[in-house]
Amino acid sequence: MPVVDGINIPEDMKGSLKASNKRDSVLGVRPASETTEAEHATIEAHPKPLWTRIRASCREAFSEFFGTMILVLFGNGVVAQVVLSNNQKGDYQSISWGWGLGVMLGVYVSGISGSHLNPAVTFAMCVFRKFPWRKWPVYAVSQILGGICAAAIVYGNYKSAIDAYEGGPDIRTVPGYSDTASAGIFCTYPAEFMTRTGQFFSEFVASSILMFVIFALTDSGNMAAGPLMPLAMFFTIFGIGACFGWETGYAINLARDFGPRLVSYMLGYGTEVWKAGNYYFWVPAVAPFFGCTFGGWLYDMFLYVGPESPTNMPYLGLRRFVKPGAEKHHNDHSPV
Amino acid sequence: MPVVDGINIPEDMKGSLKASNKRDSVLGVRPASETTEAEHATIEAHPKPLWTRIRASCREAFSEFFGTMILVLFGNGVVAQVVLSNNQKGDYQSISWGWGLGVMLGVYVSGISGSHLNPAVTFAMCVFRKFPWRKWPVYAVSQILGGICAAAIVYGNYKSAIDAYEGGPDIRTVPGYSDTASAGIFCTYPAEFMTRTGQFFSEFVASSILMFVIFALTDSGNMAAGPLMPLAMFFTIFGIGACFGWETGYAINLARDFGPRLVSYMLGYGTEVWKAGNYYFWVPAVAPFFGCTFGGWLYDMFLYVGPESPTNMPYLGLRRFVKPGAEKHHNDHSPV
Amino acid sequence: MPVVDGINIPEDMKGSLKASNKRDSVLGVRPASETTEAEHATIEAHPKPLWTRIRASCREAFSEFFGTMILVLFGNGVVAQVVLSNNQKGDYQSISWGWGLGVMLGVYVSGISGSHLNPAVTFAMCVFRKFPWRKWPVYAVSQILGGICAAAIVYGNYKSAIDAYEGGPDIRTVPGYSDTASAGIFCTYPAEFMTRTGQFFSEFVASSILMFVIFALTDSGNMAAGPLMPLAMFFTIFGIGACFGWETGYAINLARDFGPRLVSYMLGYGTEVWKAGNYYFWVPAVAPFFGCTFGGWLYDMFLYVGPESPTNMPYLGLRRFVKPGAEKHHNDHSPV
Amino acid sequence: MPVVDGINIPEDMKGSLKASNKRDSVLGVRPASETTEAEHATIEAHPKPLWTRIRASCREAFSEFFGTMILVLFGNGVVAQVVLSNNQKGDYQSISWGWGLGVMLGVYVSGISGSHLNPAVTFAMCVFRKFPWRKWPVYAVSQILGGICAAAIVYGNYKSAIDAYEGGPDIRTVPGYSDTASAGIFCTYPAEFMTRTGQFFSEFVASSILMFVIFALTDSGNMAAGPLMPLAMFFTIFGIGACFGWETGYAINLARDFGPRLVSYMLGYGTEVWKAGNYYFWVPAVAPFFGCTFGGWLYDMFLYVGPESPTNMPYLGLRRFVKPGAEKHHNDHSPV
Repeated sequence: MPVVDGINIPEDMKGSLKASNKRDSVLGVRPASETTEAEHATIEAHPKPLWTRIRASCREAFSEFFGTMILVLFGNGVVAQVVLSNNQKGDYQSISWGWGLGVMLGVYVSGISGSHLNPAVTFAMCVFRKFPWRKWPVYAVSQILGGICAAAIVYGNYKSAIDAYEGGPDIRTVPGYSDTASAGIFCTYPAEFMTRTGQFFSEFVASSILMFVIFALTDSGNMAAGPLMPLAMFFTIFGIGACFGWETGYAINLARDFGPRLVSYMLGYGTEVWKAGNYYFWVPAVAPFFGCTFGGWLYDMFLYVGPESPTNMPYLGLRRFVKPGAEKHHNDHSPV
Repeated sequence: MPVVDGINIPEDMKGSLKASNKRDSVLGVRPASETTEAEHATIEAHPKPLWTRIRASCREAFSEFFGTMILVLFGNGVVAQVVLSNNQKGDYQSISWGWGLGVMLGVYVSGISGSHLNPAVTFAMCVFRKFPWRKWPVYAVSQILGGICAAAIVYGNYKSAIDAYEGGPDIRTVPGYSDTASAGIFCTYPAEFMTRTGQFFSEFVASSILMFVIFALTDSGNMAAGPLMPLAMFFTIFGIGACFGWETGYAINLARDFGPRLVSYMLGYGTEVWKAGNYYFWVPAVAPFFGCTFGGWLYDMFLYVGPESPTNMPYLGLRRFVKPGAEKHHNDHSPV
Repeated sequence: MPVVDGINIPEDMKGSLKASNKRDSVLGVRPASETTEAEHATIEAHPKPLWTRIRASCREAFSEFFGTMILVLFGNGVVAQVVLSNNQKGDYQSISWGWGLGVMLGVYVSGISGSHLNPAVTFAMCVFRKFPWRKWPVYAVSQILGGICAAAIVYGNYKSAIDAYEGGPDIRTVPGYSDTASAGIFCTYPAEFMTRTGQFFSEFVASSILMFVIFALTDSGNMAAGPLMPLAMFFTIFGIGACFGWETGYAINLARDFGPRLVSYMLGYGTEVWKAGNYYFWVPAVAPFFGCTFGGWLYDMFLYVGPESPTNMPYLGLRRFVKPGAEKHHNDHSPV
Repeated sequence: MPVVDGINIPEDMKGSLKASNKRDSVLGVRPASETTEAEHATIEAHPKPLWTRIRASCREAFSEFFGTMILVLFGNGVVAQVVLSNNQKGDYQSISWGWGLGVMLGVYVSGISGSHLNPAVTFAMCVFRKFPWRKWPVYAVSQILGGICAAAIVYGNYKSAIDAYEGGPDIRTVPGYSDTASAGIFCTYPAEFMTRTGQFFSEFVASSILMFVIFALTDSGNMAAGPLMPLAMFFTIFGIGACFGWETGYAINLARDFGPRLVSYMLGYGTEVWKAGNYYFWVPAVAPFFGCTFGGWLYDMFLYVGPESPTNMPYLGLRRFVKPGAEKHHNDHSPV
């Protein structure tokens, strides 16, 4: 794991921030590299414990895994508490709180890997911030596994309450098929009046806003949030939930929706988890990629001046497909 | 005039912050100048892509456009969700949240241009902080266009829900003319018991508080909020909504009210959008200018010591009308 | 106005914080002194405008006036909105928000004077932090006047709504004497089941917590809040309202309670504003002084190590009454 | 072991932060050492007042005592207000607010001692961060005493209201035994549908999340919260309350639950405080130790690289039991 991972961000991310370094850090205020170096020193000085060596090569994956797990633990947990208690122990606003602070704390937990927590965010980072494409599968799988584990823990924690709510330990139902459905704890189901186009558009808009705001908050050429980034993400997610969360439940995240949906299917909620809303399940899995890409493009096109964005390359970076290597002279910041 | 300007600049803004740059930054924690310089260096070193050159001259306009768009997206979005779901997916407090965090995130997004987001704020900046008058029209138009685009997106997102709420795709009604009116999503309508004087006074008071607080929060001679500015704006807007938001809906912003009102008119809500409340529509367009000017004057008169405010000039800066050029020696920041 | 006012706080309030400087700044993150010096320089360099000279000697009073005005504007405003709209435009939690952010923004506004906003806080500062006793009357009067002005503005803003709520423009009633009483907008009235002892104890406990927390938040020998002070005050006031606010309405402040009460009396609410709750009105005026003094003593006795507190002087500082001047050797940090 | 410890220390903690000092600070942003040094200097220079000398040896205990007292004052206070006012002066969300900000302010108050506030957190610090075991009893006792005092104050404050709610000054009942039970003000009682396993699991999960998040927030090799730590703790506790607080009331703290429970027993609530929920009382006392240890282990095992954690020692630190002293060369921070 050479210096490619090495993010060294100077004070306040100002000044001599090199493009090649910045690209790995989406939400991360403190860079992972310093830790890696410290770790490196440790490894040099002493005989390496086996686990330390194994972990060193998996740390980013662990980081995304646990970050997403924290996110979904709080997110699914709050929906469980509100739904199963019949709004006695929380209301719709609690759900905004739960997802918002879940993202905030997930961002803190996964600073080592840049706090993506969302395959679509990682995708947009690859497209617009030169995050290495080879890492995308690792990140996406870690995020989905984190969502799966969290959903399983929430199920275990609320099993008695689900039994009481659904009417028995063998009854597990999905919204639209029952009045006491609890499947909504784990993943999103659309409001009944929504058309397919409306479903997609709603997820698309919310994802676009998410990515646009993330790029604004991390742009040191704008009013970057810096150490307040996790707090700003709380407000962003709270806002998306309060303002665009009704129609489709603001999944805006494959890992947060598909992972727990799979868990609910395995736990016996039946094939309705896939069939509900006319096979709605693929919308929150696919739309965020389009939305995040569009939102990121919008920000970069009109407000971002960093050279690593394709929008700031000649011919919008498309020349690489025609003439590979031609962009090197424009964007390489190394002195040689 | 070297030290006269000497409101001590906190360390993180110390560097090359020139007076001429500082004037432009209202809410901006990081000055716009640094970005411009970085951009400049890039442009020098490499052949300029066409779009980069175009954008360089429009960046402030884009910044205000997108900042106001984010503000109105969250603001109109939350009202839509609360109204159309019959308070099932939010309540009045959600609306305070939505507008508050909309302003907060809009401030982050538009740091490049100083985060005005409001023609009346820009106006007060021109009057009291030597913000260049020639920029006022550009800012105001960008802000209004941002509000228009955001309202259109919110309409598109909630079209199905509006149809269901109003009773059909052809029915669009305005508060006071129907029990299932949805026009309140886009712009403000006054409470029924309000007199014209009361309407104007309510908007005037709220705008005054807004501008007074903004000037306090950005005054480095007072306890300036610094990097917490966006968060402090969240609390300010939340507070105005919770404490002075009932009677007239706390528009306090031409761009946030007139822009979306125009959209709702074009979308078929009828001439009632103008006629409602005895042609109320001009109050939230006009009153904020008076309110923001008064609030700014109050702060400068009693608490502000910076020399760029007319209140701190001899004869309250009015001498310029009598004897143009006489103030030059006292307030000109240029070395010549 | 010599250097006695001069608070110069180094970076982060750490290191060489001298006792004589620190004592004036309660909540103030940025010191007033730098401003004063800048102002001084301005005054030196140019012929002084008359108003600048007047203002220089009244700035602390203005600062406390406007800080308390902002506090009471938001505080009384939110109660008005919640009460008069019959909980349609807010609920009890909104009231916690309103007072909390009122204090937060008031603290920001009045950083010049140390953000006391409360005669009892100023009193405790005099007792425990060597804040000059001669300033107490100035601060107290400014704070009360700020509360009076704010209450009058809130009355003007909500006059139509009060008329509609009470049943007519001539009807103004006090809680306990009417079901549609609106006097609770302006000042506090105790819950009916409270005994006199309970009333006093409730205000005493809340004031003690307030002062204890303020001293903790500003103690650089503890985990001082620093620039987060206004935000921490939001949480403190929110908490006092949510946890100890029911029984007596958590006045904990003479300026916030007595000032507006006087306004409500002058506006025609009748002598019931004084008689209600068996002449309750003096409790929120007197108890905070006892509470704040006790809370401050508690913190200083057990946790504070700064030498300016009497609790850290020999014989708890009481020797000064016996043998004036004897403490000088122990507590004077000046080199002479 | 010089650089091995080299988790880069952020600038504001750079100075003279010694490893031995850092160990003691869990949540503390500012190290306790500076205070101690200042105190030391004071003591050197002047004849020591008696109380100063006594206090110097008890300061950490006082700090934990008052921190936990503030925590429980707000926490028990908000439950009292919500329950006794029949949800008129707050709702379930208020309870999340109260406990969250209670922890936040408690953390600020007890920065001197590292802001543990919880015997299980202190335990996990001993296990994973080399916090001295000899201090555990002192911390635990201080924390429990703080909880006891706070509960007594809350009882005194709300006595009239409890009388009114229960039906008389002699009636004190426990949830499950009465419809107007007020014992839930002081400590937690489980929901009726919970099995013993479910009770334990719920407390275990919540405690694990708590410790995992605390370790993430304080890990300077990750995105440490730094000065935002108290605020981040607010969100953490709010989240645990909103997402995992229904089933067992999220005690997750022996001091917060056992201390007030003892008070309620002494105040006449009867033996039901122990018997309720099939002798539930030991679960919130015991489960947090298992949960916090597991959560801490999880974080250290997968994400933490600091050498003081046993998980980063050869053989997971278990070698010490086999061959005492063998780890000395690797982990001893002392120069000798």
